[in-house]
Amino acid sequence: MGAENQQERLDAFWITGFSDGEGCFHVSINKIPKMSLGWQALPEFRIVQHSKDEKVLHEIKDYFGFGKVTINRTDHHGTRKEFRVRGLENLNKLIEFFSKYPLKTSKAKDFKIFSEIIQLINEKEHLTKKGLDKIAKLISLMNRKPKIKYLESSETTRQT
Amino acid sequence: MGAENQQERLDAFWITGFSDGEGCFHVSINKIPKMSLGWQALPEFRIVQHSKDEKVLHEIKDYFGFGKVTINRTDHHGTRKEFRVRGLENLNKLIEFFSKYPLKTSKAKDFKIFSEIIQLINEKEHLTKKGLDKIAKLISLMNRKPKIKYLESSETTRQT
Repeated sequence: MGAENQQERLDAFWITGFSDGEGCFHVSINKIPKMSLGWQALPEFRIVQHSKDEKVLHEIKDYFGFGKVTINRTDHHGTRKEFRVRGLENLNKLIEFFSKYPLKTSKAKDFKIFSEIIQLINEKEHLTKKGLDKIAKLISLMNRKPKIKYLESSETTRQT
Repeated sequence: MGAENQQERLDAFWITGFSDGEGCFHVSINKIPKMSLGWQALPEFRIVQHSKDEKVLHEIKDYFGFGKVTINRTDHHGTRKEFRVRGLENLNKLIEFFSKYPLKTSKAKDFKIFSEIIQLINEKEHLTKKGLDKIAKLISLMNRKPKIKYLESSETTRQT
């Protein structure tokens, strides 16, 4: 293995360690009337940092060669920036990365569920009511689950 | 390099990445009447996690071969555990580790100040009023500075 690849491997483990601390796998189901089902699944991976550490977010983006560094929120603590990965092609590459350099905390469980959701989307199941129900159920098993309006909606037949 | 060392190097970068996210370099100056100066500097490194991730703290402890996993606090969110390193000998080894596998976020700045404080303690300067003043000044430059009662104390001649 050349020196360059060695360097890459090392950074990979740093990224996994940092993601174990600061990363977040997040899937929301958003109401989009113009979509055929009226709802759309939006999976994303995020690492949020205070803007003073924006540099490291760009370094992570450069490592992956995809994703975006953007504003997360601004409040009295200052501005928080996020490295964010959306889009099926990039998320599949991200899953490949974390499969090779596995997370070591309980975040590994969220990653596993996230991967299952991405797999359903790869198979276009998210375009069916049944598939979207499966995704909503998987989201409810994640550690940091967002409020799933989809499950509460009268447009779904699910009883919550 | 053998397979075993290779594995060690990899884990080292994971630990640095995780510490960049979750680690904390902390130095307090505590009132201890029985000490000759009446105050004692207590430097420590901490990684705090929810108890559900206690396992990874033990893995970090096993990697270093020193430190302690103990309760950080218990509240309505549950119990938090911490991996904690105290004691000059161990802290010197920890500094050696982070010098070899450098932090990449702004936490590197705190580490630098922390190292300077440990160096002062190595040279026994913390046992003099002048040395303790230097340490208090360095603490005030750290990002996550504790309230320094030492600086506010009437026993010191410093004007704050």
